[in-house]
Amino acid sequence: MGESLHPVLTLRLFTDRKCFGPGVATLLHRVEEHHSLRAAALSMEMAYSKAWRILREAEDQLGFKLLNSSTGGKNGGGAVLTEEGARFLAAYDAYAAAVRQQAEGLFTQHFSDYL
Amino acid sequence: MGESLHPVLTLRLFTDRKCFGPGVATLLHRVEEHHSLRAAALSMEMAYSKAWRILREAEDQLGFKLLNSSTGGKNGGGAVLTEEGARFLAAYDAYAAAVRQQAEGLFTQHFSDYL
Repeated sequence: MGESLHPVLTLRLFTDRKCFGPGVATLLHRVEEHHSLRAAALSMEMAYSKAWRILREAEDQLGFKLLNSSTGGKNGGGAVLTEEGARFLAAYDAYAAAVRQQAEGLFTQHFSDYL
Repeated sequence: MGESLHPVLTLRLFTDRKCFGPGVATLLHRVEEHHSLRAAALSMEMAYSKAWRILREAEDQLGFKLLNSSTGGKNGGGAVLTEEGARFLAAYDAYAAAVRQQAEGLFTQHFSDYL
């Protein structure tokens, strides 16, 4: 017996262009775990060049730094979230959870004939 | 002056796997306009083979037909939405509109510091 019909939401934040979404959010969570952008990217099978790019684009659009990186040392230096980065990530996570919760309730209303 | 931060939602419906999302929804709306799957696909620069595939997958997962096609005639036959297809598309549109409205309100709450 298969899964019944259910919604899957993707939440992205835009300014003029895309600036923050599930990719950067996951990347930042992995940086919190691994203390390295390179290890974070590797852990989610994302090219390091892409990790750099989406991080830079997010920072450019948001107007503040998300990561503090230190160069040198083993593994080419570590990375940690800035205070502003951690705060923004928490806002995104809380927002995404709230929207998903509302979307579940609305789904039951709108698709009751199909469940 | 650029646009301020705002959310963009993508709403997909899954069973075991993806079965309905913005691509099929737009395709069905275009079929309503053009009365042809081929013209509908062309109007949104989607390959006809992809249009066929996503339509078939949606129908397989949902368990009912979304389109009635007639073969032959000019342009290789026309297509119209089935009654069930039209009803499901209306449910998806209403659901997506409701979720977007809620998401706007929640965004203002969660990102007030960034607006």
